Amino acid sequence: MNRQQLIEQIKTKKSFLCVGLDTDLKKVPQHILNEEDPIFSFNKAIIDATAPYCVSYKPNLAFYEAFGVKGLMSFEKTVKYLKENYPHHFIIADAKRGDIGNTSAMYARTFFEEYDIDSLTVAPYMGEDSVTPFLGYEGHWVILLALTSNKGSLDFQMTTDEQGERLFEKVLKKSQQWGTKDNMIYVVGATQGRMFEDIRKLAPEHFLLVPGVGAQGGSLEEVCRYGMTSDCGLLVNSSRGIIYASTGSDFAEVAGQKAKELQEQMAVQLQSAGVI
Amino acid sequence: MNRQQLIEQIKTKKSFLCVGLDTDLKKVPQHILNEEDPIFSFNKAIIDATAPYCVSYKPNLAFYEAFGVKGLMSFEKTVKYLKENYPHHFIIADAKRGDIGNTSAMYARTFFEEYDIDSLTVAPYMGEDSVTPFLGYEGHWVILLALTSNKGSLDFQMTTDEQGERLFEKVLKKSQQWGTKDNMIYVVGATQGRMFEDIRKLAPEHFLLVPGVGAQGGSLEEVCRYGMTSDCGLLVNSSRGIIYASTGSDFAEVAGQKAKELQEQMAVQLQSAGVI
Repeated sequence: MNRQQLIEQIKTKKSFLCVGLDTDLKKVPQHILNEEDPIFSFNKAIIDATAPYCVSYKPNLAFYEAFGVKGLMSFEKTVKYLKENYPHHFIIADAKRGDIGNTSAMYARTFFEEYDIDSLTVAPYMGEDSVTPFLGYEGHWVILLALTSNKGSLDFQMTTDEQGERLFEKVLKKSQQWGTKDNMIYVVGATQGRMFEDIRKLAPEHFLLVPGVGAQGGSLEEVCRYGMTSDCGLLVNSSRGIIYASTGSDFAEVAGQKAKELQEQMAVQLQSAGVI
Repeated sequence: MNRQQLIEQIKTKKSFLCVGLDTDLKKVPQHILNEEDPIFSFNKAIIDATAPYCVSYKPNLAFYEAFGVKGLMSFEKTVKYLKENYPHHFIIADAKRGDIGNTSAMYARTFFEEYDIDSLTVAPYMGEDSVTPFLGYEGHWVILLALTSNKGSLDFQMTTDEQGERLFEKVLKKSQQWGTKDNMIYVVGATQGRMFEDIRKLAPEHFLLVPGVGAQGGSLEEVCRYGMTSDCGLLVNSSRGIIYASTGSDFAEVAGQKAKELQEQMAVQLQSAGVI
């Protein structure tokens, strides 16, 4: 999916919601465990209930790899189900990959050719040749970690160099020599609040993937105030706050309601910023 | 495997060689492709031929994930084969994982409980809570990226902060508040030459995993001169230089010879440093 198509989806749906499919069998409703493929069954129900209210899905690979071959099959089925039934939803494989050039090239082939997934999260620590192999695929995106939502983001990402530049700023600057607003998105945690102002100085037009609204405590309003652009420029993710909102047999229905609530809040933000 | 056991293996085998199982079907001998599980068949032959000369194996997950479910099955079979037939070899899952706490905890369970693999490579960008979930497993290790072997290592890892400390040094220092020499190893590329002196100032006793000898051009002698400790303190990896040394039907035999050559050079280094 290219940038223009993503923006159109956001305007049509009045939503920039991404639903995180971090499916943990310890947290799903008990009755799901009797299904043949509980992870896929859970995902399918969540997807069907939330699809009208979101523009993107983000399965985090950790939750699938935890079950080895079976988990990976659930992941593949989920991606196939999305592509067949909801082809206009932007799929993010949250895998935080990144390795030396020939290895990153293998990952790129896996996620962009084999799975044909729209985008992949990538860690920047290993620099240019670990990121660029992902950038040669038309309509596919690198989502590069810049300023993450967790406490550990303070350990290295905020380190200031001799010129007064913080590491996440260096990542934003350098990486714009490798990719463009048409093939690169940055991860910025919703918990970072006013830091979005600083991010927008360096990346005024790039889309940002924003985790941390909901369970991690970030504020949607604050993210929009400092981070929204005239094209929206945001994909705000919620995982636990939606998919585990109920652990009863009504889990999908409640997830749909939670997604709808967020979509409605997002519509207000899009309107007041003049995006729609 | 704990530190003492690893050191004993090194002394017994007179080797600190790690063989990288970066098995790429585009590079394996043609006849292997007729096997039912070509990746596993290739790995099995390589392992049997090289096991006497190395102390460790490092499958890079990218090369397995590239084939989806089938690839992951080859990975699991390889790990199982190693554990059953070569239980004293130290297994490294080269996956460069790292995510927010609850997600890193999922990865830790996968690699350390499900697969019971000795160690996992982890990227430090997301800081403390992305690394510590991997540290609670007795006899299991985090192998943290510090100063990698690729050109991109110059982009961020060498950035000097206001106090004159480079990012990789900050990673070495900070992470020693989280883990110890008994559960943490650092990745330092063989291509970094004399930087090993600086690494040893900050991590005098930790084991270092050293990729980049061979195809990437690093020098074994230089690595040993500046990086070896009285306990050896090094695991030197070679992947392409061993496993693709021949693409004929003699590939395993030639891989064994290449591993033996490296082992003999390593024995000389261990002797001259007084480790054995």
